[in-house]
Amino acid sequence: MDIKNYMQDLGRQARAASRRLATASTAEKNAALLHLATAIRRDKAALLAANAEDLAAARASGLEPAMVDRLTLTDKGVDNMAEGVEQVAKLPDPIGEMGEFKFRPSGIQVGKMRVPLGVIGIIYEARPNVTADAAALCLKSGNAAILRGGSEAIHCNRAIAALIDEALLAAGLPAEAVQVVATTDRAAVGELITMREFVDVIVPRGGKGLIARLLAESRVPMIQHLDGNCHVYLETDADPAKALKIVENAKTQRYGTCNTAESLLVDRAVAAALLPPIAAMLAGKGVEIRGCAETCALLPNTVAASDEDYATEFLAPIISVKVVAGIDEAIAHINRYSSGHTEAIVTDNHPKAMRFLREVDSASVMVNASTRFADGFEYGLGAEIGISTDKIHARGPVGLDGLTSQKWIVFGDGHVRS
Amino acid sequence: MDIKNYMQDLGRQARAASRRLATASTAEKNAALLHLATAIRRDKAALLAANAEDLAAARASGLEPAMVDRLTLTDKGVDNMAEGVEQVAKLPDPIGEMGEFKFRPSGIQVGKMRVPLGVIGIIYEARPNVTADAAALCLKSGNAAILRGGSEAIHCNRAIAALIDEALLAAGLPAEAVQVVATTDRAAVGELITMREFVDVIVPRGGKGLIARLLAESRVPMIQHLDGNCHVYLETDADPAKALKIVENAKTQRYGTCNTAESLLVDRAVAAALLPPIAAMLAGKGVEIRGCAETCALLPNTVAASDEDYATEFLAPIISVKVVAGIDEAIAHINRYSSGHTEAIVTDNHPKAMRFLREVDSASVMVNASTRFADGFEYGLGAEIGISTDKIHARGPVGLDGLTSQKWIVFGDGHVRS
Repeated sequence: MDIKNYMQDLGRQARAASRRLATASTAEKNAALLHLATAIRRDKAALLAANAEDLAAARASGLEPAMVDRLTLTDKGVDNMAEGVEQVAKLPDPIGEMGEFKFRPSGIQVGKMRVPLGVIGIIYEARPNVTADAAALCLKSGNAAILRGGSEAIHCNRAIAALIDEALLAAGLPAEAVQVVATTDRAAVGELITMREFVDVIVPRGGKGLIARLLAESRVPMIQHLDGNCHVYLETDADPAKALKIVENAKTQRYGTCNTAESLLVDRAVAAALLPPIAAMLAGKGVEIRGCAETCALLPNTVAASDEDYATEFLAPIISVKVVAGIDEAIAHINRYSSGHTEAIVTDNHPKAMRFLREVDSASVMVNASTRFADGFEYGLGAEIGISTDKIHARGPVGLDGLTSQKWIVFGDGHVRS
Repeated sequence: MDIKNYMQDLGRQARAASRRLATASTAEKNAALLHLATAIRRDKAALLAANAEDLAAARASGLEPAMVDRLTLTDKGVDNMAEGVEQVAKLPDPIGEMGEFKFRPSGIQVGKMRVPLGVIGIIYEARPNVTADAAALCLKSGNAAILRGGSEAIHCNRAIAALIDEALLAAGLPAEAVQVVATTDRAAVGELITMREFVDVIVPRGGKGLIARLLAESRVPMIQHLDGNCHVYLETDADPAKALKIVENAKTQRYGTCNTAESLLVDRAVAAALLPPIAAMLAGKGVEIRGCAETCALLPNTVAASDEDYATEFLAPIISVKVVAGIDEAIAHINRYSSGHTEAIVTDNHPKAMRFLREVDSASVMVNASTRFADGFEYGLGAEIGISTDKIHARGPVGLDGLTSQKWIVFGDGHVRS
């Protein structure tokens, strides 16, 4: 198989299909989505069988247990996949929406219309549900998609791909609107991320290693985040009850998510009052504290934090803690160590809350709320294709709008420029 | 001189200065801009002398006359430069502006705040006024800038750079907020477009050759357009008077601008009625028509158009003309040949106007208006750093907002996720 030719063919077909999809009606797109949801439920047994094939191969090749876990599709997982697709069908169609009109002194009226980006390349790892999720979001936003899943999920991804083809054709849309890369050859990824003429944006979904590699090699713009080293900062005027509740939720609700707090900053003036009850709560949940010298002095038996710890996304029951002199040091520390994902201040002081919002350079900045809220569903986007820690094009949770662009539209009545 | 180290130093200093600039007040930024405008007027003689040095060197090295023309700074040119900077001072400050708030079922309130991108690299050719224009726009939008002008303008650019430094320092802002690359070595450009850690976006301003070269080599996102092959389409229900007026303005008001129409499409049903008066108007202004066979049959002595002509941005008194069967062929032709800059339909038919708006894949799409309106000032942006034919991040005329991003902000009162 000539990988370059194969990928170029996929690209060319995707580009052609994207023209049709850009002008597809909401009814056509929703018909395809609802057909897909029905087909997923109908073929549950076949999907689980395909997944069993993948799992057998994964175990035989000694894939690590966490990866096998992510690869596993359960009966409930198939139902969730179908429901996810139905939820996307229910979202308002962003494409063609006009707005922001204003009359200009020349007499023309200028506004904007939302349009698809064109062709989206999605590169992901073991989770087979991404195939259906990503296809649904691209389709609803009028974009053609080229999906490149992990080689360990190839049987299941192919089975889902066949259902997507069926659903597109049933709705009168081109099957090439969503294409799943059929080869597990790694060279296919290299092609996908460099075909600028056929691919408008790449959305990687996977571990830091995958994303760092793609970022270094991609010639196509990417919407991605590397990691989520999120901070909670307890300012001098923090309400102690809110502080405890927010740290508990931000750190301990789930350890493996990118919006989990990994680092806690506390003002010196309130450290002695606030840290002990927080440490007791964390100890009760088995969370290890790695602290600065002052933290260790206040909390006996605390591990000393290294500089590396402050830069680490633990994704585990570990939190780094640092006592700071005040908001200047807190903001400087965050802007130095954070990955730019999400940070929260706990304070009842209004000017300090506003300074934190303005000066912390992260995709989401919060006042008196848990970092765990940084999420497409919680923000009201309906669904998310990913979370961006970049500033170009999309930032923070990325929903349907992040997969679109706006063109300028002008209404005149024979107007010419003078 | 070690170019790599030199550019890395500029990058590091720009990144540090960008932190300060991001939190600079509107008053500080405007003080720097007004000081700059005053200094430009005050040092007019010195600027003209520096420009004379550049011009002498350019003539000695045999630079082509068009380039010498662009390089030339006149007395009036210096005044315009100062006025341009004052106009940017008058624009509303986009940074820190909050909006789009909504309450979520969880009780948090989610909105957005506008923030700078960080560090902008501007790469441009002969025109020395770009140094002041681009510096002003970057400064007002809270971004640090690294400016790399053409080697032929180096004396004048250095003189303007000294005034920018003076203005920044007078306003209490770091001089490194705007840095002009002091070397004419081409390797500096290669560094600038690959320093991802220090540069957030590149805005090239110059000819197609420059931009194509940068596009091929840049590792930093770019806001750019390659060319403006703009179309006017006269639909069957076009009002003949509006059609004539719009073609005249779109083609003949200025020949060298990117929003000038380069191609005219006419529906077969109205070609015999509409084309002769338009041809007479164009002939009167010395515009050459290159037409399809049907056009040539209707307009004696017309040159036959090649396929290449339909893809060409003439930037000259030449227009390609094609008779089409209807709106389907018109849209297909435009989406094939256009550079995605600006297209206009002339019609009194509402459904066809809406189809054209929706299906033409260009940055600006217009109904019954001249393509010449595609411009930051005409659209109400106040000023423009460039026009983007890309879809990622910014599309069409790019003003201050295009040099910014939005972060998510969340207001809670001790809210946690359940």
